[in-house]
Amino acid sequence: MTSQFIEMFKAGKGVVGIVGMGYVGLPLALRFSDVNVKVVGLDVDPEKVNALMEGKSYIHHISEAAIRKARAAGFTATTSPADFAHVDAILICVPTPLGVYREPDLSYIQGTMTSLKPYLRKGQLISLESTTYPGTTEEEIVTVVESLGLKVGQDIFVVFSPEREDPGNAHFNTQSIPKVIGGVTKNCLEAGLTVYEKAIDKLVPVSSTRAAELTKLLENIHRSVNIGLMNEMKIIAHKMDIDLYEVIKAAATKPFGFTPYYPGPGLGGHCIPIDPFYLTWKAREYGVHTRFIELAGEINSAMPDYVISRLSAALNDRSKSIHGSKILVLGVAYKKNIDDMRESPSMEILEHLIKLGASVEYSDPYVKKLPKMRKHDLKLSSLALNETMLPSYDAVLLATDHDSYDYAMIEKASQLIIDTRGRFDLRNKKVVSA
Amino acid sequence: MTSQFIEMFKAGKGVVGIVGMGYVGLPLALRFSDVNVKVVGLDVDPEKVNALMEGKSYIHHISEAAIRKARAAGFTATTSPADFAHVDAILICVPTPLGVYREPDLSYIQGTMTSLKPYLRKGQLISLESTTYPGTTEEEIVTVVESLGLKVGQDIFVVFSPEREDPGNAHFNTQSIPKVIGGVTKNCLEAGLTVYEKAIDKLVPVSSTRAAELTKLLENIHRSVNIGLMNEMKIIAHKMDIDLYEVIKAAATKPFGFTPYYPGPGLGGHCIPIDPFYLTWKAREYGVHTRFIELAGEINSAMPDYVISRLSAALNDRSKSIHGSKILVLGVAYKKNIDDMRESPSMEILEHLIKLGASVEYSDPYVKKLPKMRKHDLKLSSLALNETMLPSYDAVLLATDHDSYDYAMIEKASQLIIDTRGRFDLRNKKVVSA
Repeated sequence: MTSQFIEMFKAGKGVVGIVGMGYVGLPLALRFSDVNVKVVGLDVDPEKVNALMEGKSYIHHISEAAIRKARAAGFTATTSPADFAHVDAILICVPTPLGVYREPDLSYIQGTMTSLKPYLRKGQLISLESTTYPGTTEEEIVTVVESLGLKVGQDIFVVFSPEREDPGNAHFNTQSIPKVIGGVTKNCLEAGLTVYEKAIDKLVPVSSTRAAELTKLLENIHRSVNIGLMNEMKIIAHKMDIDLYEVIKAAATKPFGFTPYYPGPGLGGHCIPIDPFYLTWKAREYGVHTRFIELAGEINSAMPDYVISRLSAALNDRSKSIHGSKILVLGVAYKKNIDDMRESPSMEILEHLIKLGASVEYSDPYVKKLPKMRKHDLKLSSLALNETMLPSYDAVLLATDHDSYDYAMIEKASQLIIDTRGRFDLRNKKVVSA
Repeated sequence: MTSQFIEMFKAGKGVVGIVGMGYVGLPLALRFSDVNVKVVGLDVDPEKVNALMEGKSYIHHISEAAIRKARAAGFTATTSPADFAHVDAILICVPTPLGVYREPDLSYIQGTMTSLKPYLRKGQLISLESTTYPGTTEEEIVTVVESLGLKVGQDIFVVFSPEREDPGNAHFNTQSIPKVIGGVTKNCLEAGLTVYEKAIDKLVPVSSTRAAELTKLLENIHRSVNIGLMNEMKIIAHKMDIDLYEVIKAAATKPFGFTPYYPGPGLGGHCIPIDPFYLTWKAREYGVHTRFIELAGEINSAMPDYVISRLSAALNDRSKSIHGSKILVLGVAYKKNIDDMRESPSMEILEHLIKLGASVEYSDPYVKKLPKMRKHDLKLSSLALNETMLPSYDAVLLATDHDSYDYAMIEKASQLIIDTRGRFDLRNKKVVSA
């Protein structure tokens, strides 16, 4: 069975089915199409499926041309799990968010397995790409497969291969980012390598699905903790009246033993604020604690409030209150040069400022209108920045430092700048680091 | 005064005096000698001074040839502060340890300033290189200078320029490691740059002595926290039966956003276990906390005990107790391929094992005899490793992974290996990760 599967993919005949047509699944689908693998995309959202079938894009950094090209090469999208009956490799790229009590929400993975269960068969491979705690692939995929009487490693292959998408990264893409992969058995790994090597330049095999699961978590835990550390250092540097950005820049000249990470207004995106808590949750089962993760979470999630306290103090120095002030927030995407707003701390800052009685507006070249979100419906549109409108705001708060902003103009025209990104000159008295 | 000072050094006439002929001061003295600057080394230890005057070395990685070469070029050493009366640039490279309550011990800096005070004069530069909290240069150097009626920036120049020595680093040395420098005034910085640019390839000026002080602390805080995080992850990985070294290696294939750090048996050396607490102490003055530093300190300092608990469990699996077992510790230097034992966790492990009733020996090609240390006097000598002696030990504990060990031979010949460095194959049942 293993050699049959491998030969089929080597001969270019295997069909790839991707579950979840979002930030991870869609680029992966396009990449497989690019190398002439037949791809079927499955999504529960009919709007996304219709858009794809019409050659349209709903993700800023993915062009319609790329989708039309894939369509011409045979890429199709569907809302029907039944269309996966003829798929040979199933790649699951669904969200793994947190519940309200910061517990893992595996409902998308479980829903996927439930809907695909009638169509699973001998000779298929299932790869889970969603970030999750060690053990998930065995607990959520293998158990379902075995309940069908299929033997993993003989009848069907199961691997975990975490996505490493980095939207907005100009240097690396789906093809060039090395991809970690671990199999339930040696045959599983071998089958998985055969599928992915068609699309990905470099694969990194590890000894188990659990090692692969922890690898992805470790990457994001490392980032969360390092950003948390810099946020704590920022608070200390503010107290000591030292410019932490200058210090980080100087420390980064050490050619070994130091890697720069930067503070900010809080964590955003679908990975860094969420993934680490998957390990926290699972660790409890083993009676161990993830204290660095908890501390980073605590400090990072307090950042929007800290930024507002710095704004409040700066306004107070000018005998103003937040209540009644006009405040312009620059940047609502969760990181620079992209349109992705998931978990963006700017939303929390905007909403908090409104509660405190400020009159708020925003400007973000990537986000024309604030979409309705799970927690927020602010009904604001992005304003164009210029020398005429900027002076009318009591404070301009830089939350996300898109490169396209005209920083010199903004610094010149604004009354007061609250800078959470180290972009403005702190020697200028109207600039306050936050 | 500034231009006079600068011209003097540019013309190669300035004399450099270095206080402290240790791991930092001696390489710096040799480097200045190399570029034909006249150097006087001051140390309170007459044995060091005598050794240097006789062209002998007391530091493993510094050759006698290098010292003899410097001597021939005019380098002298002295125990007498009076010999600094004719020195133009005073570079202070003395220790800044912690007291028993983890409070900064600035007594070496203060002692230096007291002994030099009678010989300070117009036209000199003082550079502090010792790692310390922001504000030290102003509080400990500037106040002394001003008490003499000398005006900083006009009569005398004061800078902070932290050492970045990394003993055993094959790629970078005193000359090639970029050096951060901050002046009390603009003139101070300019004078300091003129002195150091003779010896150092790349200087990194920052806006103040306090920014330079925080830069050095940030570098070591970053390391301490990242190692602490990996030590916590190691404990979790052990519980989940995942090889953390494999996971770190896989994560390190991500070409952005991740930097590998490694767990170990505890922190060693004169920097990482100590420096971060200088900031912790100073932060209290400002009413802020350094929680990442405290957490890293707590986890890192618990590592020797954790390693012993893993050893104890592995012996227990073999129906043995630590009491009465023969245990061989590999590596007593604080890091690999060097002879430096300061703060080495191996010492704590050795002493703890003795207390528990084990019969301990050690092997370290860099440390022939265990020196008497502040806390320990174990009177042990390094044993030669071979296939005949290794099987006689109930356990071999790898604490410091010198590259010169014959790991294959050790793995083959030992009964049980406790590996704190990820050097042995965990699939081998006699290898236990710790």
